[in-house]
Amino acid sequence: MKAEIIAVGTELLTPDHVDTNSLYMTGELNNAGWEVHRKTVVGDGLEDIAAAIREAIHRSELVILSGGLGPTEDDRTRPAAARALGRNMSRSDKILEELRRRFSARGFKMNKNNERQADVIDGAEVLDNNFGTAPGQWIENGGRYVALLPGPYRELKSIFEKDVLPRLRTLSGGRRMASTLFHITNVPESELDARIAPLYTAYPNIEVTVLAGTGHASVKIFRWVDDVESAADIEELGEKIQAELGNAVFSTSGETMDEVVGRLLRESGKTLAVAESCTSGMLGMRITSVAGSSDYFLGGALCYSNDAKMKLCGVQPETLAEHGAVSAETAEALARGVRAALSSDIGISITGIAGPGGGSADKPVGLVYFGISDGARTEIRRRVIPGDRESIRERSAYFALSMLRDYLINNKL
Amino acid sequence: MKAEIIAVGTELLTPDHVDTNSLYMTGELNNAGWEVHRKTVVGDGLEDIAAAIREAIHRSELVILSGGLGPTEDDRTRPAAARALGRNMSRSDKILEELRRRFSARGFKMNKNNERQADVIDGAEVLDNNFGTAPGQWIENGGRYVALLPGPYRELKSIFEKDVLPRLRTLSGGRRMASTLFHITNVPESELDARIAPLYTAYPNIEVTVLAGTGHASVKIFRWVDDVESAADIEELGEKIQAELGNAVFSTSGETMDEVVGRLLRESGKTLAVAESCTSGMLGMRITSVAGSSDYFLGGALCYSNDAKMKLCGVQPETLAEHGAVSAETAEALARGVRAALSSDIGISITGIAGPGGGSADKPVGLVYFGISDGARTEIRRRVIPGDRESIRERSAYFALSMLRDYLINNKL
Repeated sequence: MKAEIIAVGTELLTPDHVDTNSLYMTGELNNAGWEVHRKTVVGDGLEDIAAAIREAIHRSELVILSGGLGPTEDDRTRPAAARALGRNMSRSDKILEELRRRFSARGFKMNKNNERQADVIDGAEVLDNNFGTAPGQWIENGGRYVALLPGPYRELKSIFEKDVLPRLRTLSGGRRMASTLFHITNVPESELDARIAPLYTAYPNIEVTVLAGTGHASVKIFRWVDDVESAADIEELGEKIQAELGNAVFSTSGETMDEVVGRLLRESGKTLAVAESCTSGMLGMRITSVAGSSDYFLGGALCYSNDAKMKLCGVQPETLAEHGAVSAETAEALARGVRAALSSDIGISITGIAGPGGGSADKPVGLVYFGISDGARTEIRRRVIPGDRESIRERSAYFALSMLRDYLINNKL
Repeated sequence: MKAEIIAVGTELLTPDHVDTNSLYMTGELNNAGWEVHRKTVVGDGLEDIAAAIREAIHRSELVILSGGLGPTEDDRTRPAAARALGRNMSRSDKILEELRRRFSARGFKMNKNNERQADVIDGAEVLDNNFGTAPGQWIENGGRYVALLPGPYRELKSIFEKDVLPRLRTLSGGRRMASTLFHITNVPESELDARIAPLYTAYPNIEVTVLAGTGHASVKIFRWVDDVESAADIEELGEKIQAELGNAVFSTSGETMDEVVGRLLRESGKTLAVAESCTSGMLGMRITSVAGSSDYFLGGALCYSNDAKMKLCGVQPETLAEHGAVSAETAEALARGVRAALSSDIGISITGIAGPGGGSADKPVGLVYFGISDGARTEIRRRVIPGDRESIRERSAYFALSMLRDYLINNKL
């Protein structure tokens, strides 16, 4: 069944803002059997919004609007929807009372503007807003449906879950998108599709999207299925892809690389310390983005300067003088040194040239060394990472996580 | 003059992807005198794309499409535009030759699919693509204009700058958006508008958008001006807002907080070291996101565990035992300690409870202490930051930067 989403707000037509509510809603719509086949962003103009609704309801069984329900003069989604559907509005005493109650609970008197939020389109069902003043509305119109939702994410999400999704599930009668999303590391873009295409071409009913970057890639296999229909083919193809890619698949559950590494560390019972030069905090930040990471992450050193490498990780001046800060030898000394400094089970290090300056023919921008040490052994990896400063740093932190994952998996085997 | 943007691609209608090309183009369009009054995302269906173009060219003088120009069967923007405009296409020998040359330069033979990229809509001007195989196209249609651009950002940006913007500037005859964007720190949302509204309401021709979060806020004042017209009122209002907000304005040039702090550090000739507990790398990462930061940033300690606080920053066990890891005393010891450990001029520290666990009635989730020390003195700030783990960490790193900025400004005065 076909849905479309209209985001309302002049700020969404500036260089500074992008509609992201639709991403959340699209995921939930797909799960509930609805396909989003168009998204529109319009400004605050009454006729602009009304025109967008008129067009959308011609094309689609479901039109969801977000934004433009607030109290200001720029909030015109309600009257625009009324105009598009050829209906009147009336002010609801019940909502007015609730609005006044909310304001007085905070010690404010409600001003006149806020009363608009009590305007209800004739025939609409009011969807209570537990986190804000503007309620949503649900309107049936000749066998098609229009939902008006507030723009702030928390308010929109709450109403969408509570009042919109249940209606949509009933309407779609159990239709849903069956899918598996593979997160993959360390398979080059050119290789990935070549390896899995022979598998998925045998399933012409299944759609496949392959998104590959440097380091991280994802493959999504999906198909719309009816209530009674089995999605055994999705499972079957999923198993074949998993078998082909093996350990390169780091998650099919939505778990991020940060979470996977955290889980593996926790399972291993080992503690970690990091020494970061060019990334200077990105790796530590990612590891500690997982709640509970204090169980396995002890801390680390941001050794941006040579002096910090010596003082915090005990790198010898000769190592730096002979091999340079960006070298296998320094990466090794950093991994060992931070492990010793914090008495962790594992030490991991990153040292490289993020640019734009500092590169040479010998050691170009993007050259990064990684070290991992557990006392028994130390492994070093060398990579030349393409891209700008930001992406070299991001990919370096990602690569270190992926290397740590490899270590934790192989260690357990 | 009115423009709209159509992003083509079924992947942009999934939960995983959002169109961001339009943000770049909107900024450039505004500067060139064009207002974006609608954005649309459509899938790969030929008739879906054609319908979107037909509707758009009715509404707008300029329609820009991104995506769908590649060699695969899902790339249908060219035939869709031809259908919408009622024109034929013909295969260009010149483009075919160029495509073959590109493929053979890489040692490949071009397959048949790629030939579609040589299809040119009758009457279109071809816009060369220096970074990819699919050229863009520019079509005049009854005094209105349609531009077809490739989806990959680097290719789109290159063609847009080189071939589209010059045409748009000519068409708009020097019309442009005059604007000033204020980046503001440490003014509460409730206070900000109250302070500047009396100023901007005196300029009814100037539009104002206020976007306020916790800590960081922005105010944009803007107005469309013609070629010969002066924007003296924008400057005048800008000066009044600047005078009212004073040092709370950290940038009107587009400089980020990271860049402002970097510039102030460089100007001061002082070096910095950081000690991060709950943020564990976010602050170091932001400071080193600025190229050349090695001139003033020495490094720091990720002291996530108590042990790391003692080992890397010399925090006394008694301090931790008596006051806890999240306390003014520990923040002070960390700032002093990391400064001593790395012999920097300034030491700055963050220690707090990012949650979701670890909070108590006494020390709730979101409680964060910040320290800054320069040897002569040490200052401590205490904040209770709302939001989830991610936002508490982000706001903590931001607040530390803002505090460092205050220090550097006042120190110089």
